[in-house]
Amino acid sequence: MYFVTYEVGKEEKVGLCDPQQGKIISIDRFFEKEEITSYPKTMLELIDIFTVELGKKMEGWAGQEAFLNEGIACSEVKIKAPIPYPRRNIFCLGKNYLDHAKEVGTVLGDQEEIPKAPIYFSKVAAPAIADGDFIDSHPGIAQKLDYEVELAVVIGKEGKNIPVEAAEEYIFGYTILNDVSERGLQKLHGQWHKGKSLDTFCPMGPYLVHKSQIPFPVELEIACHVNGELRQHSNTRNLIFDIPQIIHDLSKGMTLKPGDIIATGTPAGVGMGFKPFKFLNPGDVVTCSIEKLGTLTNQVK
Amino acid sequence: MYFVTYEVGKEEKVGLCDPQQGKIISIDRFFEKEEITSYPKTMLELIDIFTVELGKKMEGWAGQEAFLNEGIACSEVKIKAPIPYPRRNIFCLGKNYLDHAKEVGTVLGDQEEIPKAPIYFSKVAAPAIADGDFIDSHPGIAQKLDYEVELAVVIGKEGKNIPVEAAEEYIFGYTILNDVSERGLQKLHGQWHKGKSLDTFCPMGPYLVHKSQIPFPVELEIACHVNGELRQHSNTRNLIFDIPQIIHDLSKGMTLKPGDIIATGTPAGVGMGFKPFKFLNPGDVVTCSIEKLGTLTNQVK
Repeated sequence: MYFVTYEVGKEEKVGLCDPQQGKIISIDRFFEKEEITSYPKTMLELIDIFTVELGKKMEGWAGQEAFLNEGIACSEVKIKAPIPYPRRNIFCLGKNYLDHAKEVGTVLGDQEEIPKAPIYFSKVAAPAIADGDFIDSHPGIAQKLDYEVELAVVIGKEGKNIPVEAAEEYIFGYTILNDVSERGLQKLHGQWHKGKSLDTFCPMGPYLVHKSQIPFPVELEIACHVNGELRQHSNTRNLIFDIPQIIHDLSKGMTLKPGDIIATGTPAGVGMGFKPFKFLNPGDVVTCSIEKLGTLTNQVK
Repeated sequence: MYFVTYEVGKEEKVGLCDPQQGKIISIDRFFEKEEITSYPKTMLELIDIFTVELGKKMEGWAGQEAFLNEGIACSEVKIKAPIPYPRRNIFCLGKNYLDHAKEVGTVLGDQEEIPKAPIYFSKVAAPAIADGDFIDSHPGIAQKLDYEVELAVVIGKEGKNIPVEAAEEYIFGYTILNDVSERGLQKLHGQWHKGKSLDTFCPMGPYLVHKSQIPFPVELEIACHVNGELRQHSNTRNLIFDIPQIIHDLSKGMTLKPGDIIATGTPAGVGMGFKPFKFLNPGDVVTCSIEKLGTLTNQVK
C-alpha cells in the first residue's frame, strides 16, 4: 500500500495511491464501506489506529476493481508530504554509510571519521515539503547548500528499549527524505541542528509505503541525481547501523512514538564530498530515488 | 499573568494562577463571560489566538475580586507542564553563559570553549514533565545524569528574519526548563541530541509567565539547588547571546512559530563542572528557580 497525503479543493485528505495507474482514492471510502464513522482524517491519525487486521482489509479493498474505477488521477490533486506536520522533529543519523563517513571526514568538527556509535541529530520538519515543492536557496544566509538522499523509517507503534529482533514490528512504513543541509551553518553553530533546519529543508515523499510492500531486511537501491547527473548511489544494505540496530539503540531510554520519523543517513556523493565542492545553486533540480519508494524531485529556487 | 496547564478530574485545562494566593481559575470562565463560544482548549491554542487586547481584558478580569473568590486551590489539581506536548522539539542553546562555557571546556568533543556563534541543538519535549514529576534515572542506560537550570522563552507570534530590536514582540512569555542531560550519551553519540532527550528529561514550569510581568531586557536571578545545596547561581543578564540576539539569529532562514520554546542555556555549576563530578543519583531533589517565574522541583527516581 502506497499512502499519500493530498489536497483536493482546500481539503487535506489521506489516500491510497496506485503509482502504476497514477490514481488515488481517499481512505474515507474504505471507512465508509466498513461503516466506521469516526475515522482518521490525517496520516498521523491513520498510523495511530492502524492494525495488522485493518491493513489486510484495506489491502483487499485497494486491490478491488472499484479502486481503479473510482480513483482520481494523481495529476488532478496536490500531493503533499506524507506527514506534513510531524509531531516531533525528525530523528536523523549522521555518517551512517561508510563511503559517506570517509568523504566527510572531520570537516564538520567532529573527532572521528567512522562513528563507533550512531550519531543522532534532529531536523525541524514541521512543516515538511512535498515532491515538486521548491527548496529555498536562502540568499544571504546559505552559501553551501547541499543534498542528502535518505531512507526514512516511519514508526507505527509506541516502544521503548525495543529488542533488535522485534524492530520490524514497530515500523509502519518507509519514505524518501532529502536531508537538505547548509554546510556553513552546520559548522558555524557547533552542533548541526540549525544547518539542517532552515525553512524548506525537509522534502519528503511522495508516498508513505507500508512495510508490507518491502521485504525485511530492507535492501533497496538508493540514488540522487542533480540536473540529471548521478551524484549518490548505494544500497540501504550498506548502512553502518542498520534499521533494527537503530530502532533498538535509539529507543534505549527514549520512547519512540507512532508517526516518529527516522532518517537513516546518506551515502557518499554529497556536494561537500567533491573537490571542488558541488553545492546547489538556484535552478538546480534534485531527484532522490529509492527502489520501490518512488522519486522525490525538488528544484532550488 | 501566570498561566498554567492543569488536570482536574481527567480533564486538561488552561488556567490563570495567583501564586501568592495559591489559587487557579480556568480561562474557560473568561471566555464564557466574554460570550466567546469557540475558545482555546490548550495552552498552544491560547497562544495561537492571543492578542495584546485579549491580554489586557484577561488581566483586568484576573485582577477582579471574582478570581480570588471563585479560584480553586492549586493543591486540589495536578499542575502539568505549561505546554505538555510542544509541536516541535525545544530549541536549546549550548554554552551560553561564560562561566559555564569555561567549566565545560571541550570535554564534549567540540572545539572551542567560548562559542563565536550560538550553539543550537534540540531536545525532545513531547511529552514534557511537570513540577513535582519524577526524573527517571534510567538504570543501565544513564551513568552521568546532570541538571541544567534554564530560562525558556516561549514564542507568541510567527516570524522569520526577526530584527534584534523587534524581538520582544515575538515573545509570549517565559518559563523554567531543566535541561536534564546524560553526559555519557551526549558524548557517545557525537551530537548532543540523544543525551538530552531521554524520557522525563524535559521538566518545565510550573507557570508560563506572560511577558507583561517581566521587564525587558530580562534580568532575572537564576539558581539550581540539589538536595538544598546551591549548585548554580547567576543572572540572565549574563547570557553570552541575549534573548533579542537569539531570536534574531535563530529566525534567520527559519520561521519561528507560536508555541516554540527556546531554552537559553545554563550557568556554571552543573554536575560535570565539579571535580570530582557531582552527577545526580536516585533520590536527589533538583530545584530550579528563576526570579518571578517560580520554582520547578523534581526528584530523581
